[in-house]
Amino acid sequence: MNAPTQAAHLIPEIHQRAVPVALIDALKARFGANCSTAMAVREQHGRDESSFQAPPPAAVVFAESTADVADAVKLASQHDVPVIPFGVGSSLEGHLLAVQGGISIDVGRMNKVLSVNAEDLTVTVQAGVTRKALNEEIKSTGLFFPIDPGADATIGGMSATRASGTNAVRYGTMRENVLGLEVVTASGEVIRTGTRAKKSSAGYDLTRLMVGSEGTLGVITEITLRIYPLPEAVSAAICSFPSIEAAVRTTIQVIQLGVPIARVELIDHNTVRMVNAHSKLGLREEPMLLMEFHGSPAGVKEQAETVQEIAAEFGGNAFEWATTPEERTRLWTARHNAYFAAIQSRPGCRAISTDTCVPISRLADCLLDSVAEADASGLPYFLVGHVGDGNFHFGYLLDPNLPEEREVAEALNQKLVARALSLEGTCTGEHGVGLHKMGFLVTEAGAGAVDMMRTIKRALDPKNIMNPGKIFSL
Amino acid sequence: MNAPTQAAHLIPEIHQRAVPVALIDALKARFGANCSTAMAVREQHGRDESSFQAPPPAAVVFAESTADVADAVKLASQHDVPVIPFGVGSSLEGHLLAVQGGISIDVGRMNKVLSVNAEDLTVTVQAGVTRKALNEEIKSTGLFFPIDPGADATIGGMSATRASGTNAVRYGTMRENVLGLEVVTASGEVIRTGTRAKKSSAGYDLTRLMVGSEGTLGVITEITLRIYPLPEAVSAAICSFPSIEAAVRTTIQVIQLGVPIARVELIDHNTVRMVNAHSKLGLREEPMLLMEFHGSPAGVKEQAETVQEIAAEFGGNAFEWATTPEERTRLWTARHNAYFAAIQSRPGCRAISTDTCVPISRLADCLLDSVAEADASGLPYFLVGHVGDGNFHFGYLLDPNLPEEREVAEALNQKLVARALSLEGTCTGEHGVGLHKMGFLVTEAGAGAVDMMRTIKRALDPKNIMNPGKIFSL
Repeated sequence: MNAPTQAAHLIPEIHQRAVPVALIDALKARFGANCSTAMAVREQHGRDESSFQAPPPAAVVFAESTADVADAVKLASQHDVPVIPFGVGSSLEGHLLAVQGGISIDVGRMNKVLSVNAEDLTVTVQAGVTRKALNEEIKSTGLFFPIDPGADATIGGMSATRASGTNAVRYGTMRENVLGLEVVTASGEVIRTGTRAKKSSAGYDLTRLMVGSEGTLGVITEITLRIYPLPEAVSAAICSFPSIEAAVRTTIQVIQLGVPIARVELIDHNTVRMVNAHSKLGLREEPMLLMEFHGSPAGVKEQAETVQEIAAEFGGNAFEWATTPEERTRLWTARHNAYFAAIQSRPGCRAISTDTCVPISRLADCLLDSVAEADASGLPYFLVGHVGDGNFHFGYLLDPNLPEEREVAEALNQKLVARALSLEGTCTGEHGVGLHKMGFLVTEAGAGAVDMMRTIKRALDPKNIMNPGKIFSL
Repeated sequence: MNAPTQAAHLIPEIHQRAVPVALIDALKARFGANCSTAMAVREQHGRDESSFQAPPPAAVVFAESTADVADAVKLASQHDVPVIPFGVGSSLEGHLLAVQGGISIDVGRMNKVLSVNAEDLTVTVQAGVTRKALNEEIKSTGLFFPIDPGADATIGGMSATRASGTNAVRYGTMRENVLGLEVVTASGEVIRTGTRAKKSSAGYDLTRLMVGSEGTLGVITEITLRIYPLPEAVSAAICSFPSIEAAVRTTIQVIQLGVPIARVELIDHNTVRMVNAHSKLGLREEPMLLMEFHGSPAGVKEQAETVQEIAAEFGGNAFEWATTPEERTRLWTARHNAYFAAIQSRPGCRAISTDTCVPISRLADCLLDSVAEADASGLPYFLVGHVGDGNFHFGYLLDPNLPEEREVAEALNQKLVARALSLEGTCTGEHGVGLHKMGFLVTEAGAGAVDMMRTIKRALDPKNIMNPGKIFSL
């Protein structure tokens, strides 16, 4: 595999397009105080959780409605200026950086749950609603939305990056759970995709084209989602293993047997240590699986017994059960905070997170050699995984003042991605391509497929103003 | 809703593009006997199960490999001539008709199962493999592919129309079950989309864009699918109801309670009568639900008990169980043959099949008024439904020599579609748009969304040679 050139640099070929004063004046006239050019606001909107840096956007528009988004895009289009949608800034791959200049459209104030259709298990929300706010709002209905990336991201951002999380092994990703969208196109027109029907063969699947398009084809303003009944019974368990391999082989067998497990997360011994320190837990500092079972009481019991038997065969210790909702919440909060626990373990560090995903039968092949390489490198790292989906993340913890550490981390990531692709997997299971994986995407999908993406982008956004410079060079 | 103009005519604006002799000569030189211009062959490839008619394609190429497809497309492109992919000819919406002239590419000989990955539950097949052939080939592995449109369609055709069937309520449609594709583009280039990983955020979702594109963006040549373990326990049951409403209300409650039923099919009393006559069955000639439960023995028992209780509340008769595989096969074959049973019930007739799909809570509203309208029209019809998905089909049985019957049928369909759209549903759950629903698509999706589809089509197929004149006018 050719080394992607951008991996070694902070930002590939920054080409800042001019933002005319006339546009800023027009935005201020239209949006008043909801258009800010204060440096602190611009800087906050010009970065994300990645380790990339670029000059901030020239202005930030705080949109309060779809009409606001449409007007902001129309004004930007008149001046050929890029627009970058912003939710809460939790992207990991540089999606929010104004690498070609432009303005940021913050949809965070578009935070209404517009309708809950409990009898059809659907909900329609504005793009700025976060996953936790949505679940809080629908709690009284006995329903929930399962997709849970680490951060409390917005539903708009999760749609744009085709996010998933710990529940995807049972409930799928944003690909499976978005039924329809409202989108502001590159010309500022508002279109709708999909319906509330469960299935449809009505023309091109624009919904799925927009999900995962990372803001490059339009700004997502509304989303209709599937939601699910809270399971009748839930039980969570921790099981420690003598080795990462034993935990991984247990997972593979559970999935291959078709056990409908709701969550099965790997946390390596390094990361257990970091989580213990951060969340004041007393977990055994060994590789562990954190699992959850959803269903009827009988179904949950049946699933748990099957998994316990398999784990025992691979030397797993007796399950420790978290039976109360409070205990479960404590465990899963600790899991979701693993990233922040890891960052805290090395003060001042930045993390480079990997995101490969492989067919389940290839998981051990992909993971174990990469662990050996990471250990040999001497770089501190954390390792967590949605292993039931074949997806896992190394987080290499590097000192931003030591360029040689970044080089080591990038070299580890390149080896890992090459391995995942040779095992028929993908370079990104859930974080997206952004700035960081543009070279990997060409290797994975082939130049022909990436050219097809580019052709679609050019056709739908002829001025190349929608979050340009992400996914592929253009 | 405006009446779509094409509904009243056999074929909208046939504009036959010229097929130069030089192209036919080049195809004969390249493909020899695998390129046919015999009228019988052309006619067989110029129609489908719809009631539409158009002049046949100028030639048929029997492709035996992806390279054959690519070469045929390249030659057609050089001469600006349309190409229409052909599987087994079971489309219902005129997808296969050469409305702008051109050549047919028959992929039926590309019928190899290329690889079975039992441990990852994936399989890769050539486009010409039919669903039954696939299941026959993987039977010994204990796995199966659940998507089952009425006909024994090809996997390529099922992908192109985003097909589903009776198992979709549990296993999803082609949208959820296609992991990746090999596609010959409009320029004759071969690209691959997707990987064997269960999830990915790697760029635009070209897989889902191609699934349902009805041959208008490329020719699908290979498909990687999800397959499933044969359930440990299966049981099927029939339950008769005093009214269609009672059957529908039972279904709604089963779905809303989250029972993971594998199949729940409505058959109205007319259709039961036709099926009895055709398949020599002695079913009670009342509205019925035909159901199937998959899972562990305990799980199946639990599901069946729940459903039985609900059915009893709505006046459903005691379940009749089909416990042996032979009995189940006999019942499901009868269900799959309902279309042919109906056609036979009125010798010489053609069917116009509706395909609306609505959110489950709206199913009774959508269905019952439409039944009253169909009864009042006096036109014979059958009614079957994948009611667990909110999807059902009226088949109006019309005498092709009586244009007034077609007008009655089209008027019924228009009222039904208008009703489904007002209930937040779709004009087509699984058959596709083809020639017949182009007007409905504009009403459903809006002119802006259809323009976006058209823009994508123009960009990926600038000569408009890939199955032109389908989905939208161009």
